[in-house]
Amino acid sequence: MALVEKETMHISLSKAWGILREKCRQLPAEAVPVQNSLGRTLAEDVIAGRNVPHYNASAMDGYSLLSALTAGATPSSPVSFAAGEYEWVNTGGEISARFDSVVMIEDTSLDRKTGTLSVVSSLVAGENVRPLGEDVFLGQVIAREGDRVTPALCSLLATAGVKNLRTLALPKTLYIPTGDEIIPLEEWLELETPPPGRVGESNSLLVKGYFRNWAFPVDIAPCIPDDPNILKSFLEENRKKYDLILIGAGSAKGERDHTFSVLEDLGHPLFRWLLMKPGRPASAADLGGCFAVNLPGFPMSNAVILWSVVFPILQLLHFGDFDEETVLPLAIGAAGTEEVTLLSSYSSTYGKEEWVRFKCVEIGGGKKAYALPSGASALWSLSETDGLSLLPLETAERTKGTTVNLWLLRDIRWKERILFQGSNDPAFERIATFAKKKGGEVIFRSVGSLGGLAALSRGECHAAACHLLDTETGDYNTSYIERMFGPQADALLARRIVFFRQQGIMVRKGNPRGIRSVSDLRREDVVIVNRQPGAGTRVLLDFLFRGENIDPGNVRGYENCSTTHFDAGNKVLRGFADAAAGIKSVADALGLDFLPLAEEPYELVYFKSMEDHPGIAALLESLNDEGWRSLVDRMGGYRWTE
Amino acid sequence: MALVEKETMHISLSKAWGILREKCRQLPAEAVPVQNSLGRTLAEDVIAGRNVPHYNASAMDGYSLLSALTAGATPSSPVSFAAGEYEWVNTGGEISARFDSVVMIEDTSLDRKTGTLSVVSSLVAGENVRPLGEDVFLGQVIAREGDRVTPALCSLLATAGVKNLRTLALPKTLYIPTGDEIIPLEEWLELETPPPGRVGESNSLLVKGYFRNWAFPVDIAPCIPDDPNILKSFLEENRKKYDLILIGAGSAKGERDHTFSVLEDLGHPLFRWLLMKPGRPASAADLGGCFAVNLPGFPMSNAVILWSVVFPILQLLHFGDFDEETVLPLAIGAAGTEEVTLLSSYSSTYGKEEWVRFKCVEIGGGKKAYALPSGASALWSLSETDGLSLLPLETAERTKGTTVNLWLLRDIRWKERILFQGSNDPAFERIATFAKKKGGEVIFRSVGSLGGLAALSRGECHAAACHLLDTETGDYNTSYIERMFGPQADALLARRIVFFRQQGIMVRKGNPRGIRSVSDLRREDVVIVNRQPGAGTRVLLDFLFRGENIDPGNVRGYENCSTTHFDAGNKVLRGFADAAAGIKSVADALGLDFLPLAEEPYELVYFKSMEDHPGIAALLESLNDEGWRSLVDRMGGYRWTE
Repeated sequence: MALVEKETMHISLSKAWGILREKCRQLPAEAVPVQNSLGRTLAEDVIAGRNVPHYNASAMDGYSLLSALTAGATPSSPVSFAAGEYEWVNTGGEISARFDSVVMIEDTSLDRKTGTLSVVSSLVAGENVRPLGEDVFLGQVIAREGDRVTPALCSLLATAGVKNLRTLALPKTLYIPTGDEIIPLEEWLELETPPPGRVGESNSLLVKGYFRNWAFPVDIAPCIPDDPNILKSFLEENRKKYDLILIGAGSAKGERDHTFSVLEDLGHPLFRWLLMKPGRPASAADLGGCFAVNLPGFPMSNAVILWSVVFPILQLLHFGDFDEETVLPLAIGAAGTEEVTLLSSYSSTYGKEEWVRFKCVEIGGGKKAYALPSGASALWSLSETDGLSLLPLETAERTKGTTVNLWLLRDIRWKERILFQGSNDPAFERIATFAKKKGGEVIFRSVGSLGGLAALSRGECHAAACHLLDTETGDYNTSYIERMFGPQADALLARRIVFFRQQGIMVRKGNPRGIRSVSDLRREDVVIVNRQPGAGTRVLLDFLFRGENIDPGNVRGYENCSTTHFDAGNKVLRGFADAAAGIKSVADALGLDFLPLAEEPYELVYFKSMEDHPGIAALLESLNDEGWRSLVDRMGGYRWTE
Repeated sequence: MALVEKETMHISLSKAWGILREKCRQLPAEAVPVQNSLGRTLAEDVIAGRNVPHYNASAMDGYSLLSALTAGATPSSPVSFAAGEYEWVNTGGEISARFDSVVMIEDTSLDRKTGTLSVVSSLVAGENVRPLGEDVFLGQVIAREGDRVTPALCSLLATAGVKNLRTLALPKTLYIPTGDEIIPLEEWLELETPPPGRVGESNSLLVKGYFRNWAFPVDIAPCIPDDPNILKSFLEENRKKYDLILIGAGSAKGERDHTFSVLEDLGHPLFRWLLMKPGRPASAADLGGCFAVNLPGFPMSNAVILWSVVFPILQLLHFGDFDEETVLPLAIGAAGTEEVTLLSSYSSTYGKEEWVRFKCVEIGGGKKAYALPSGASALWSLSETDGLSLLPLETAERTKGTTVNLWLLRDIRWKERILFQGSNDPAFERIATFAKKKGGEVIFRSVGSLGGLAALSRGECHAAACHLLDTETGDYNTSYIERMFGPQADALLARRIVFFRQQGIMVRKGNPRGIRSVSDLRREDVVIVNRQPGAGTRVLLDFLFRGENIDPGNVRGYENCSTTHFDAGNKVLRGFADAAAGIKSVADALGLDFLPLAEEPYELVYFKSMEDHPGIAALLESLNDEGWRSLVDRMGGYRWTE
């Protein structure tokens, strides 16, 4: 059918919005029962067809009577009412036409034998009466077109007898996961060890989650295989039932990527490929009364297209329009905006808008941020993100110290948060949960022992930790710190040994390569994975190599670096390497065998001037927390200083 | 059983919170399937039990191969790979152990006959590979205790194979409406004319609405009658199944108000009666593992106790604590706070905290507000509220111009909003919906023609409207305006006749009292309802009385005032009066008969300097809107000026 034209391929998001604006029209308003109207938007003014209350009602429990007869009544000179001259009325009860006011029970006494009521206060006409129409009168505008139905309005409309409301229609959306490699979620969650090359169907949770946050309904179809005929007939069947169909994956440029061809076949393509990263392989089509969007399969790309294409379409179908300034922050659920300066430079791809995920912290009175991993498939960094930015097409490099505007995804407690940069230790990182309960928040960035001290010296973190062996003296850390901070180091810095930890060599269970000592690491049949330059563990390994006269150039895998103990241990576990230097707790956690080499102090370093920072205070207090300490003890390979 | 002690009766909200804090403990954490975890709060750190990806995966569709063999490949000197030296791999597919990189399809050409692949770019090891554990590695802390499950985290946890999560328990709540006068909602909505003394069960919509906004579940029980035994056995049956039971009504001090006695009977009362307005007749009790709260029956009181008692209890059961500073704005869903100055003084009840509902507007650069009707049963004003304030116990009178801090319930477009004060006209008020579409928002306050001009002269509104007959000259408005604004009136003010409207006498259908002229209004058997002093309609009536030499003192009902045409017409319709002066459109809308007396100009007045205000501009533009004009024409009794 219609071939997509050049000007609708590889286009900017703003151009895609222009196309959508032209094609997607507001759905006709729909009637909903008042009971189900919460959160809906009214499509017309609502005029009261009834008075509320619809009779003269008592505002309290008491006796209705004629106010004129109470004139002059006081506690010392009560006025008596014979039976028949008053009537008991409950709160909300109807007041007889012959009475005009209600006396509260506390201002009366009733002689039960004679039925005489003594009244000790004088009333005016209408006292304690809720007259007919007091809340809403017949003919009144109760609510206007465009108003959202709040709990109060919903209850008010029901009270006023409004049975159905004309509201803006909620678009009906279907999400279809596709792919031969996809395992249905329920099955996936039961798998002990999932087969390689297969993945769980988890994008539907992203879709459901955002739709729920947006208060739009969405149905999830079962996953369909990579077969254009099946996809085509499934779309043909469903395009009559839905206003919007989202197709997951099959969107790149490979053997199985037939989604777009099917859309071309069935309807009129609107655009294909966006100048956006991630999110490039997105497309949209008009299937005739139903719109289709192809969402890329990687989760971050999937999320990005949900925000920047799907949400704007929903706005068009529901409201008839959207505001280009606010549609993206609304879509991502931004809690606000913030201008931050970059803690590290960031290279962006020129010619593409780029979504960047940032972690934030306030240091030295300034709000700072650094980018988290940027991959299309990096879901963890989306989950960790404090703030998002969509860098413009023409951005190439953002250098350290330049400003970026973020949409904040959470409420950041700036004053309580600290950034830790330094040596990676999985036991130490568990302290964050305990510090949080003491009013602090600790963000960890593993940059190695030397990297941490350097960041601290540049004022780019609140605390660092290191375990750097001085191979001349056999001492730890002191000489490195003095070199970095100069002669005032002692005056400026506080140092505290967190614990001693076992360093050694991690090998697979049963030690299949028979590695017994450091010298075995130079063997031809042994491949190691190393840690990054500046890591204390690498410093230790280099020292041990020198002791054995081993030339690192002769060690296989010496140049392969991991930045954490877990990552290194993991590579050994999965057979990508035979050995790695690392700590005992990680070997234990991964079920690896461990050859101890040394015990080293893991030392926390921070500026003394920072001691009153709620984050530092909470961190220091947590070092003695029994809960954290027993968790560390259970991990193994740690010894306390006292 | 245990009698409630003195210090738990008639107490402040803050004291009630102290009692609740002591008694309501956090519920034990509960496991939920990851698919249902969206929005839940984690009760423990989540550690990855798996790598994500769990194999070396391709980041794109392409050919996997050994990067070393691509050295030097360029478009002009491609490198050839024989069949078997490469392998096709889909995005996300597994890369064989013998390969270390993936070349993108665009950088290759395949000879399908020989199976030879030409590669035109050189790769490095790991290129286009998502290594094992790239996103999340086995042993990594994925999320921490206290984190909320976002769409991204939910999807990430599923991807990492986390099947169940320990999360903070959601309290199970049951709401029980009570009262013999209550009609079930479904039945109520079917009633053409509801019987006096009966009301629809609509508070459950308030309860459901707030619980939904708070993301806590709630079940609604069928309404039970005013019978302590039924209530008691119903509570006994349900207190084992719920953490919190809310009982609607039966809370005042009357014949049917047995709820508290039942609570005393079944458990240990926590408090009764709050020093709060509305919301006083609230109580709470500990039923042994289940808490009960008695919500007053009037909707505003019901809402107030939901916010200030129920929501804090939910926070205690869920989070184990709440913050006294933020719990109320959280409960009401405040969009922010704002300091405003009062446009009218407000009298508060000394010795009670008082919830006041405000309507806001920006005039003369300052943010202002006036109180809406304050009754416990006034649901319309809750629905209309822009901002809420809880005035402290010791507040007596807040005079005009004093400041009040509001919790804003909506996002106010301050720059586009105008306040209209003046003569009431139901057709004119319908213009707001049309002005909104033109970028303005008009708030109406009916204060009568004279009241509007006075407010305008004091800078307390943006626009006014009047229809004031000068009984000396027969002219309308001019002499009143000159008296109010002095000789510069013409220079300062813009005037525009909106339309001419029919004034007359509204009587019941068929005119049962046989009223033929103004002079009939002085008859012994005729009772009128009047409009408030300063209303143009009253000025007209007084003028007509003078013409007929009628002494208002001899007109029955002359002192009974309504502030709107609809209210006055309504009183006639329901038989509380026999006649009222008013406009034809209202008589038509209410199905009343109408005796025409005069046609009058309804004139809009505003400062010329305000013409550029987006609200004034939208209002003026809307005066010519075809949609509004045809709506006015359908209402009847109006004539356009041109």
